[in-house]
Amino acid sequence: MSVTFAKGFTAAGIAAGISSVEGKKDLALVVNNGPLDAAAGVFTSNRFCAAPVQWSRKQVADGHIKAVILNSGGANACTGEAGYEQSKATAETVAGLVGAKAEDIAVCSTGLIGELLPLDHVLAGAKQAYAALADTDEAGADASHAIMTTDTKPKTVTLESAAGWRIGGMVKGSGMIAPQLATMLCVITTDAVVSAGQMQAALNAAADLSFNRIDVDGCMSTNDTVLLLASGASGIEPDADEFNETVAKACASLARQIIGDGEGASHDIRITVTGATTEDAALACGRAVAASNLLKCAISGNDPNWGRIVSSLGTVPEDVAPYDANKVTVDVNGVRICENGGAGRDRSEVDMTPREVHIDIDLNAGDAQATVWTDDLTHEYVHINADYES
Amino acid sequence: MSVTFAKGFTAAGIAAGISSVEGKKDLALVVNNGPLDAAAGVFTSNRFCAAPVQWSRKQVADGHIKAVILNSGGANACTGEAGYEQSKATAETVAGLVGAKAEDIAVCSTGLIGELLPLDHVLAGAKQAYAALADTDEAGADASHAIMTTDTKPKTVTLESAAGWRIGGMVKGSGMIAPQLATMLCVITTDAVVSAGQMQAALNAAADLSFNRIDVDGCMSTNDTVLLLASGASGIEPDADEFNETVAKACASLARQIIGDGEGASHDIRITVTGATTEDAALACGRAVAASNLLKCAISGNDPNWGRIVSSLGTVPEDVAPYDANKVTVDVNGVRICENGGAGRDRSEVDMTPREVHIDIDLNAGDAQATVWTDDLTHEYVHINADYES
Repeated sequence: MSVTFAKGFTAAGIAAGISSVEGKKDLALVVNNGPLDAAAGVFTSNRFCAAPVQWSRKQVADGHIKAVILNSGGANACTGEAGYEQSKATAETVAGLVGAKAEDIAVCSTGLIGELLPLDHVLAGAKQAYAALADTDEAGADASHAIMTTDTKPKTVTLESAAGWRIGGMVKGSGMIAPQLATMLCVITTDAVVSAGQMQAALNAAADLSFNRIDVDGCMSTNDTVLLLASGASGIEPDADEFNETVAKACASLARQIIGDGEGASHDIRITVTGATTEDAALACGRAVAASNLLKCAISGNDPNWGRIVSSLGTVPEDVAPYDANKVTVDVNGVRICENGGAGRDRSEVDMTPREVHIDIDLNAGDAQATVWTDDLTHEYVHINADYES
Repeated sequence: MSVTFAKGFTAAGIAAGISSVEGKKDLALVVNNGPLDAAAGVFTSNRFCAAPVQWSRKQVADGHIKAVILNSGGANACTGEAGYEQSKATAETVAGLVGAKAEDIAVCSTGLIGELLPLDHVLAGAKQAYAALADTDEAGADASHAIMTTDTKPKTVTLESAAGWRIGGMVKGSGMIAPQLATMLCVITTDAVVSAGQMQAALNAAADLSFNRIDVDGCMSTNDTVLLLASGASGIEPDADEFNETVAKACASLARQIIGDGEGASHDIRITVTGATTEDAALACGRAVAASNLLKCAISGNDPNWGRIVSSLGTVPEDVAPYDANKVTVDVNGVRICENGGAGRDRSEVDMTPREVHIDIDLNAGDAQATVWTDDLTHEYVHINADYES
């Protein structure tokens, strides 16, 4: 399913021998068969952004992308001119296969930083993937598997409007997830008839409220890429608001799935800050709490440790988020354990058994609010990121 | 030893029954017997600062402190007016014992946030500690033990100038350690003849280069307090530069000891950023790297993962730290594993067996530099902060 749910798209996911895991699907191809080839993208703001990001950002700027090739098993980041040439050669090969210019091909990579890709495998894999292209559910599913790294499951979304146009999407991402963007590759397809400008505006707004509001481990990646492709194959011009809302819904679903599969996570934590003077203030407070290792450890130990919540809130400068510490309340899973900046109901009353934990903070300073998501910090997270084979 | 190394000070550390650990020393008293009672202090910038911080910050403002009472076993943070009254009552009791005003008594607390102290134990303990006051090495050592929480060892410093005046100090701190300040209580004593203004300037500069440049887990505390007390008992007026340098040296030693005892740490990581346009730029880069959970996990797994170093560097905005990503070099333990922003020598050449790991980053953009310290992120850190009894 995933990207092939929208009409006009074919996809494939194959094992090209790029990943060090024998036989793992590691190369995906998504082709837009039109009639439109409109595209929009958002990318990592990391200054050490990877070669494929440098390539794709340039190509999506004119609003046209015909196909996207994505690989796991190597990030092609911090690989200099040689890395850039690899991304370019990959795009050229795909362009030759699909009958487009290299400038209409986006390239995405994910995996270890600092190493070049086995380019012969990538190029041979591109041909193999091209031969496997299909518009079936299975082809879409294969593509969503091929981009996984430490992900334990594929992450996809399908939405259909009442008018009949569709959105499909896939994302990978599990660790190195933080604003801005997460370590993630994401391709969202639609068969709606939309312009590149309209898509870019919709994607910017949607990413800001989804991928930019999740934080697994506070670490920004070099390879983050979110692409939105439109084929126009439904022949339907969508209501503008409905299109924006549906793109936002797709991104929110994919972002939520990333949090649900955060490295080693045993709890998904939703932090909602209300009563802020501005949305930015609410967001700054939410992000400060989401970044607290101590809180994330406490949650993994099933302790709703509100002291670690307010001590994180207290790091946000007053000019960023004006509030009175003596008026702050904190509810965890519906129990007000912090009242007026001090102890409220006993924290033993909080049921911490559900995977999803809700932290609701009321600053009592205004009417604005924001929600961010994070994961708890577990032994397994350390295991995944310390005990790997380097 | 510790605070009693400087002449004119007596100290004690006793078990007052504040800590939940049966028989643990949990109350320390440090008394300045003069002739001077000059004092300076720096405190957490957390907006949820604890009652003892609110009390002590006010009392040290006039440059006079006669005695400091410190407890582990409870932070008295987020405890509202009742908590403040506890700090005040504690100060009043000590004032009565040492023959001073309550306004000349500093109070420090460390432990769980959100609960009031068992005040009767604190006040009875103050009397017991007063009775135990001595200027001996043992009394100083007892005090340094009494302030420990998750610390595995006491942390003290003693320095003697050629002229004969002395500095002694003790600190506690292990987790919840980040700029600004660490979760720490610190008392430094000197028998030099110095003014409160001179001491405050020396302490500000010293803290900025020591306690504000360490980061165990990125979490700012509610209770951080660093006090510098002068008795003048040596009768010696120190050279101003030498005094500043010696205070800086004492703070640096204590900060280094905190990193050496970071919760669960298996490596102490020194990050030096050179070639920056300004010291602030170097510091921003150093702090970004020190905050990377992924890097800290990699180091705990003995992997000098330079990809995680440069991807953290890449999060620092260009207006904060101008540099060209293609000119950055990274050495780990003397091996240049990243050259011109890409792969350098093979990381298998790096000997990761020493506890101390040196990460040297050259931005090649200017002449300024800064050094920060952090710890690795281990299974044990998660264990300490997740599997405790709440």
